Amino acid sequence: MSTSSGTNNGGPSARLAKVANRLVGEVEKGPDVWSVFNPLVFPTAVNLGQGFMNFPPPPFVRDAFLKEASERTDVHHYSHPKGRPRLRQAVAKTYGPFIHKPKDGYDPAPASGQTPQIRKETEPLDPETEVLITAGANGGMYSVLTAFIEPGDEVIFLEPFFDQYEMEVVYNDGVPVYVPLIPPPAQESQTSVGADKWSVDFDLLRKKLSSGKVRAIMLNTPHNPVGKVFSLEELQEVAKLCIEHDLLVLADEVYDCLTFDGKEHIRIASLEGMFNRTVTVGSAGKSFACTGWRVGWLLGPKHLLNPTLAAHTRILFCVNSPASEGAAIGLEEAPKHNFFAVQREQYDDRRKILMRVLDDLGFKYTIPHGAYFIMADASSLQMPEDFQFSDFVSKQSKDYKMAYFIAKTIDVVCIPATAFASKENAHLYENFLRFSFCKDGDLERAAERLQKLKPYLKK
Amino acid sequence: MSTSSGTNNGGPSARLAKVANRLVGEVEKGPDVWSVFNPLVFPTAVNLGQGFMNFPPPPFVRDAFLKEASERTDVHHYSHPKGRPRLRQAVAKTYGPFIHKPKDGYDPAPASGQTPQIRKETEPLDPETEVLITAGANGGMYSVLTAFIEPGDEVIFLEPFFDQYEMEVVYNDGVPVYVPLIPPPAQESQTSVGADKWSVDFDLLRKKLSSGKVRAIMLNTPHNPVGKVFSLEELQEVAKLCIEHDLLVLADEVYDCLTFDGKEHIRIASLEGMFNRTVTVGSAGKSFACTGWRVGWLLGPKHLLNPTLAAHTRILFCVNSPASEGAAIGLEEAPKHNFFAVQREQYDDRRKILMRVLDDLGFKYTIPHGAYFIMADASSLQMPEDFQFSDFVSKQSKDYKMAYFIAKTIDVVCIPATAFASKENAHLYENFLRFSFCKDGDLERAAERLQKLKPYLKK
Repeated sequence: MSTSSGTNNGGPSARLAKVANRLVGEVEKGPDVWSVFNPLVFPTAVNLGQGFMNFPPPPFVRDAFLKEASERTDVHHYSHPKGRPRLRQAVAKTYGPFIHKPKDGYDPAPASGQTPQIRKETEPLDPETEVLITAGANGGMYSVLTAFIEPGDEVIFLEPFFDQYEMEVVYNDGVPVYVPLIPPPAQESQTSVGADKWSVDFDLLRKKLSSGKVRAIMLNTPHNPVGKVFSLEELQEVAKLCIEHDLLVLADEVYDCLTFDGKEHIRIASLEGMFNRTVTVGSAGKSFACTGWRVGWLLGPKHLLNPTLAAHTRILFCVNSPASEGAAIGLEEAPKHNFFAVQREQYDDRRKILMRVLDDLGFKYTIPHGAYFIMADASSLQMPEDFQFSDFVSKQSKDYKMAYFIAKTIDVVCIPATAFASKENAHLYENFLRFSFCKDGDLERAAERLQKLKPYLKK
Repeated sequence: MSTSSGTNNGGPSARLAKVANRLVGEVEKGPDVWSVFNPLVFPTAVNLGQGFMNFPPPPFVRDAFLKEASERTDVHHYSHPKGRPRLRQAVAKTYGPFIHKPKDGYDPAPASGQTPQIRKETEPLDPETEVLITAGANGGMYSVLTAFIEPGDEVIFLEPFFDQYEMEVVYNDGVPVYVPLIPPPAQESQTSVGADKWSVDFDLLRKKLSSGKVRAIMLNTPHNPVGKVFSLEELQEVAKLCIEHDLLVLADEVYDCLTFDGKEHIRIASLEGMFNRTVTVGSAGKSFACTGWRVGWLLGPKHLLNPTLAAHTRILFCVNSPASEGAAIGLEEAPKHNFFAVQREQYDDRRKILMRVLDDLGFKYTIPHGAYFIMADASSLQMPEDFQFSDFVSKQSKDYKMAYFIAKTIDVVCIPATAFASKENAHLYENFLRFSFCKDGDLERAAERLQKLKPYLKK
């Protein structure tokens, strides 16, 4: 018997229990933000933390899902690894007009230094080769990275960022490279200002690109947690750099149907020279209030989706079938119900309630133009000096302490913004807390409770 | 603009479209067996190929799924990354008695050279730390490999093997190492013999282990496609080697509830010294005829499941919620319906129908003792010399040609056995075709059609 195995002590040997290097940071880092600010930890709290709804999918979508699952056998069995044909067709039809696919994939970039414009063509997307159904947007993005990232390849994302990105890159042997979105300057943020005032640090982005090792950029618009909807000018500037450096673009657009204040969601894939380098990511969960269905989709050229299919098929084989069929019918019937416009109004009402609550409290915040989160600037909060934090929280940055204080004191859960930042840039966001407004009724309950914070706020 | 980007020709540059090295073999290998022997290619065929049922989940499971999804909001939203508590509890309760968990994880291996026995203790599994719900068994196995396999680590599996294993290992930078199960010798197989006559090549297994680089073994029992249920003696021999070489064991037991002819499914995790090194894999899809639900589970010690959770959470975040709730209720209520015993009888009836069909044809086959496949020895098939194969099939081994001939000639689809083998060992299996018997009614239709093969069979 191997002397090194150490198995005869009755527990695992060091070798046996050793995790792969790609996971070491993740396993050793201790509790993540979701386990600290969790309903099980704060069981009576109004939870404006994690971004899922407290209402069900719209009846026409839920009923379609139930009907298919009750009447058909095949919707209980394997789907094609590409995804169910009906859903691929519905996705192609719904998204095609906004992707502006060029004819025969021929999409020359503008001449050097010229600004890429939105393409004039709008060829239909091919549901066989240009749409892929994935196990949530998450499983889709992971599969793109598995398909294309070599060890040591750098992947850029703009901070703050959806916290899944980082380990998705690391597990696939890539190296995350962080470029912050800069919050509005302090003098401007004396009043609440729009998310468009968060600006891309293009100088730093250019500097990071000069490493020559950057393979891909993950671009999230509408942006979680900032609520920024990237402008045409910003996307054009990003696109120019992507073309110049021949980057692959993962366009995380899962909040595409939630924009406010007349802001228009523009898809970077629709800019000249970008179709062939972009995988656009969408989500049934965000579109139809069914985050637990785990159905997402990718759109892009065959040369990017075919390898991604090869990855996704081996990682997961296929996606939940009844939920896929429900999502397909959802997309087909949404226009009949004017669903996305109605849903946008409902979220806008929720957004306005939460904004009023924060106004009333005297919190400044970023007015979100998309998605369903508000970044509140809690720098006016004065916590008692003798307040007792948990061991873990006491070692974290100011935003963790503020979120913990609020949860303990008034039983409202929000998420500290540095959970979405790298260590190097966390200092930019440590006054911010993320509140979600995807909850019916809870916003009114939160409003009452938040009143009790008033004694702790600087005038 | 970078001169190398080549984007101004309007298509992707070579750099942009270059897939990661881990995928190159998979993307370049051409069509896989599932796309050749596919319902779209043979639309009128009786499909005894891919292993999914043509019947729905049992009513008590499907109705539970429908009821939860119609009445509750939370089953449409994110589950905990560990899996829904109700399902984790049901899995712990159902599987606990067969895992024989040792007290406090203290599970010494027997002294060197001694044979590990089934443990006497049966501590309850902890649903918080010793059960993990995954996106199918597939997503679970992938996550274990992500969590533990370092670049260059060798992973052994016994051939023929479930074809997903190979790329699951390769995508996680591991190196597959193949050890064949040896079919019964020709003189014995003059009549059909039991799957227990397929033997593990232990000498070769020992030789492969001597590389010192083997980190893990994937052990599938009941075995797809052979139908072998590993005996206690075989499992003990494997366990001794796993202990000696301090290996991690991925015990793929998704067909655990389907054994025949009185064969008993024994879990390798239940042997002395094995609990701490084994992750046991189960599947709602196989247990409840719902392969499209994509719900699986892992059982094992915390030191193996906690890193696996860290992997699965970032790859997928969580599992489909309504299907998880349905599976939970399925496990809870199965005993009341005596479900697994009844289901086993139903599959045994299907098995016997397919065996009679093959007997009648004069095909020899391996009598499966588990799972829902029969490996038929088609060496008596004489194909016309002028038969036209497709380009792809004409370059493949004999079993591909036979499966293609059968599909084209009598419109019955089966799967060539070398699809489940490495190149180095494919020659062992090239007379075999895999027929699945998880189809109601189709077996009778197949029986009629298979009669038409008689003119092509040697006496």
